[in-house]
Amino acid sequence: MMINNSISTKQASEFLSQSDNILLLCHKNPDGDTIGSAGGLMYALKKLGKCCAILCQDRIPDKYDYLKLELYRNQFIPEAIVSVDVASAHLLGEKTAPYNDNVDLCIDHHPSNTSYAKMTCCDGSLPATAQLMLEIIENMGVELDKDIANCLYTGIMTDTGCFKYSATSSATHIAGAKLIDAGADHTFIANRFFMSKSRKNIMLEKYALNTLEFFCNDRCAVVVLTKEILDEIQAQPSDIEGISAMPRAIEGVDVGLTIRQLTDSSFKISIRTSENINACEIAEGFGGGGHTRAAGCEVMGSLECVKKAILREVETALCK
Amino acid sequence: MMINNSISTKQASEFLSQSDNILLLCHKNPDGDTIGSAGGLMYALKKLGKCCAILCQDRIPDKYDYLKLELYRNQFIPEAIVSVDVASAHLLGEKTAPYNDNVDLCIDHHPSNTSYAKMTCCDGSLPATAQLMLEIIENMGVELDKDIANCLYTGIMTDTGCFKYSATSSATHIAGAKLIDAGADHTFIANRFFMSKSRKNIMLEKYALNTLEFFCNDRCAVVVLTKEILDEIQAQPSDIEGISAMPRAIEGVDVGLTIRQLTDSSFKISIRTSENINACEIAEGFGGGGHTRAAGCEVMGSLECVKKAILREVETALCK
Repeated sequence: MMINNSISTKQASEFLSQSDNILLLCHKNPDGDTIGSAGGLMYALKKLGKCCAILCQDRIPDKYDYLKLELYRNQFIPEAIVSVDVASAHLLGEKTAPYNDNVDLCIDHHPSNTSYAKMTCCDGSLPATAQLMLEIIENMGVELDKDIANCLYTGIMTDTGCFKYSATSSATHIAGAKLIDAGADHTFIANRFFMSKSRKNIMLEKYALNTLEFFCNDRCAVVVLTKEILDEIQAQPSDIEGISAMPRAIEGVDVGLTIRQLTDSSFKISIRTSENINACEIAEGFGGGGHTRAAGCEVMGSLECVKKAILREVETALCK
Repeated sequence: MMINNSISTKQASEFLSQSDNILLLCHKNPDGDTIGSAGGLMYALKKLGKCCAILCQDRIPDKYDYLKLELYRNQFIPEAIVSVDVASAHLLGEKTAPYNDNVDLCIDHHPSNTSYAKMTCCDGSLPATAQLMLEIIENMGVELDKDIANCLYTGIMTDTGCFKYSATSSATHIAGAKLIDAGADHTFIANRFFMSKSRKNIMLEKYALNTLEFFCNDRCAVVVLTKEILDEIQAQPSDIEGISAMPRAIEGVDVGLTIRQLTDSSFKISIRTSENINACEIAEGFGGGGHTRAAGCEVMGSLECVKKAILREVETALCK
């Protein structure tokens, strides 16, 4: 992480304490961490008597309604622009365009942060921006309350997959404990994000499981979602995201492929791998890319040809 | 909870500190909490130079191999009998029969504990016995290490559904933090129990989803597992346990039914309900029983008749 103008959480707290009419920017396709972190900061700033609201390129999904965020609708003229959980200015969008090149402070946890803001407070070792935000809010001398706690707990819980992912540390649990003590409805939040599935998700799972096949001595699992099924279910990209993790999560599987039909002769392949297999390398063989454990590419041809081609690359990767 | 001979964690620690040749009993069909709590105590007692081993009616499942527990094979003559996470002596089994009526100390977190031991250290408000065990081990003055931490973290994580269930408190997270600091392989444990599924589970899910139907204005979801399928997959009761939660977890569903065929004309029905519906009442209508959110019963007849009968009761429960 090469960050210019890097500042500490204490300096970030000081800047916020001295500011007013603060516009908080979330990243597009907002998730629980950008929404929860921005929400927590919004409630904290309001407690200090400041004017503050949140702006996001995309609509905040209904499932975050309980956080009761105040969205920016020109109710004040922004004097300080703060982006939250936004690794790069490209992740902001058109709706926030007047502010994208003028972000005063970025609060983030992505190691890939591009240092686009005048000041950046980023800790790439943390599993969630919300964990960093808790420190900033505490530094400002704001007493935690139920609203702040619900927002930050949502951020931490969603970005750590419920305290499961590897960046979770003892400090993450200490943060969780503080937020529960401050009144976070932790069971409600857990239920909402981890213990229920939409009917669309369930139908997608059903169709995907019916196509499940194993290859490469059962080390590769493949599911296919045809255009017909996706149209029938009216599945959104976020619905498919949940399916992509499924084949890899089967015991003994090192490479999970989710093949999604785009047109009659083109397919998007999502590749998930276990620790020792590089998903990005497999994707790059088809002009795609991504991360070492999760990558993707588009391949042209019939389903049979596409499958054969990708399985050849998987076979090579598994033999390395 | 009416417990005679109730003792504090401090008194439990004192008893253990003064004992040697300690036999630890787990409950039958052992889960992560009975195994993890017994394992944590085993490592702690060994650190104090004591002789100690674990006995359980059933085989400890392979997935707990990483805890490297020492099982009792008559390597010493037990002088102190300690049951761990065992609510009633009935949950011990034949293999532990010589000791079942002579348990000196029971360490537990079940509100339904029957007070069968000479001394009972039970806190029914805790989500896991492992959380109580941590306090007992700390009271004994034993420094936590990786072995103890892995055992207790396994207990807490499995019994809280990964910090999701309602009995999880800030103290549970503080316990989690301590165990991570002591070296618990928390990511490994999370992966093992929450991020992978066996092929049997996946096949059961597939078959169950293919039978999924909605009734009562979509407030009741039903899946059926026929004897043919269960035999084909060679499914164990623990495999089916995972399926039972699925229908209720669908958005908008208040009653989830999993109908499992026992013989040509008898079916076991698992009933899971949302907050305001009493699963036990529905089950009792068929001579079954259980808890308010999870209950079960057996019903005789053809699949169609059984379905009709249970749906009539569900309809009544939903209209209350």
